[in-house]
Amino acid sequence: MLSKNTLKFIKSLQQKKFRKQESAFFVEGSKNVTELLDSDFEISHLLYTDKFESENRDLLKRFKGEAFLVTQKVLESAGSFQSNDSALAVAKIKVNDQPQISNSELILALDDVRDPGNLGTIIRIADWYGIKHIICSEESADFYNPKVLNSSMGSFSRVNVYYTDLFTYLPTLDLPIYGAFLGGNNIHHQKLKPVGIILMGNESQGISDRIGELVTERLTIPRFGHAESLNVAIATAIICDNFKRS
Amino acid sequence: MLSKNTLKFIKSLQQKKFRKQESAFFVEGSKNVTELLDSDFEISHLLYTDKFESENRDLLKRFKGEAFLVTQKVLESAGSFQSNDSALAVAKIKVNDQPQISNSELILALDDVRDPGNLGTIIRIADWYGIKHIICSEESADFYNPKVLNSSMGSFSRVNVYYTDLFTYLPTLDLPIYGAFLGGNNIHHQKLKPVGIILMGNESQGISDRIGELVTERLTIPRFGHAESLNVAIATAIICDNFKRS
Repeated sequence: MLSKNTLKFIKSLQQKKFRKQESAFFVEGSKNVTELLDSDFEISHLLYTDKFESENRDLLKRFKGEAFLVTQKVLESAGSFQSNDSALAVAKIKVNDQPQISNSELILALDDVRDPGNLGTIIRIADWYGIKHIICSEESADFYNPKVLNSSMGSFSRVNVYYTDLFTYLPTLDLPIYGAFLGGNNIHHQKLKPVGIILMGNESQGISDRIGELVTERLTIPRFGHAESLNVAIATAIICDNFKRS
Repeated sequence: MLSKNTLKFIKSLQQKKFRKQESAFFVEGSKNVTELLDSDFEISHLLYTDKFESENRDLLKRFKGEAFLVTQKVLESAGSFQSNDSALAVAKIKVNDQPQISNSELILALDDVRDPGNLGTIIRIADWYGIKHIICSEESADFYNPKVLNSSMGSFSRVNVYYTDLFTYLPTLDLPIYGAFLGGNNIHHQKLKPVGIILMGNESQGISDRIGELVTERLTIPRFGHAESLNVAIATAIICDNFKRS
C-alpha cells in the first residue's frame, strides 16, 4: 500500500530544492508516463488507476519498480495536475553530463528561458524537428519542473537537455551560432543548412550582450504587421522550420 | 473615488456570463491598457497607479472616461493578474459584425480552439504576420476572456475576431481553404501565395469532419523527429511563416 510518507515524498518533488536533494522527479498523465516507461530513465515508483491498468497491461507487466494501484483522488493529491485520471511515475534525475555533439548537427541553445511552459514547448518543437540536444544556461527553467515535463507532451524522454555556462561551452563546439534578434538578417532570404546552434534569448531581455558576442550570424523573422515581438517558443518553431526547409 | 460596486462590477467581468450581460470587458497591464487607449474601443473606466501616470501623462490627458488613481493592491484585487503594477481598463464589447474580407487577403479560421492562451497567442501571431481577420467557430475561446487578451500582448486591438458558424460562413468567402492536417501535402514543397483561409483545428480533435469537407488543400508541417503533434499556436505560426515567404 502507498504510505503517507511516499505520498509526501512525491509531493515534495514539485519543488526544485527537494528534487535536487532526492535526485528524483515525477511525471503525470498517461502520455508522459508511458513515454517514461519506454525510456531509459530509472523509475522508482508508479502510481496508476484502473483506467491506466486496462490500457497498459504489457507495460505494467514489464515494470520492475514499486507499483501502486490508486484512486484518481490520490493521484491528483500527489501530483500537480488538476485532473489526472491515469498515472504518475517517479524517476531518478539523470546526471547533467556533457553531451556528444557532432559538427554536422543542428542543436538549440537557450540563454535564460525562464518560463517552464516555454521550455516544455521548445522541447516538443525540438523533438518534432529531430533536434536531439538543447543547451541551457544555468538560470533557465528546470527541465524536471512538472510544468516543463507536462508541456513537453512526452518529448522530454527523447531530447537531451544540458545545463552549463553558455559563454564557455558554446565556443568548444565546432558549429556556427545563429542568434535570433530583432534587426538581423531576414531568415526568409538566407540559405540555411541544418547544421549549427540556434540561440534563443530570455522572454523579456532576449539574448544577453555577453552571449550575443558569440553569435556568428544574426537572424530575424520578418514582420508584416504590428506585434512588437513573438513568444520565444513560437520564434523557436519558426526558425527551426526555416532551417529544416533545405 | 472608486466605489465598492464598481470594483465588484470589474471583478465580475472575469466571467463570460457577466461580460455578456454587461457588454463590457477589461484588460490589464501597461502594454494592454496603452494599446486599448490607442484603439477605437469605447473605454468606460480606467484604474491606474502612480507609475502608470508618470509614464503616460499624455494618454491620460486625452482620456475622457472615468479615471481612478489607485494603489497596486486595489488593481490586483480588481483584475486577474497576480501582479499588475500599472493599470486596468474597462471597455465596451464590440458588436460581432460580419467583417469585410477581400478576395486577395490571407486570414485565419479556428475550428474550436478552446484554450484562451492559445487564442491569445494566435492573435499575436496574426498581428505579427499582418493578418487582420480571424474567423472563430462559436465554441472557440472567448476573445474577451482576460487570459486571451493578456496573452495577445496588445495585439487584440489590431486583429478583428469574428465568431460564426464556419460551415455556412467560410464558403461565402471567395478564398481557397487550407487545412492543417497530419498527412496532408508537405508545406515546404507547396507554392503558397498569401491569399486564402488558413484553417486550424481543436487542440485534441483537430479540424472536425464537417468543417474538413470545406478544405480545398490539406497541408502538413513536415516532421523530422518523433513528437506526435505540435501545439496549435505553434503550428499556426509555422504555417503563417510559410505563406508569407513568397
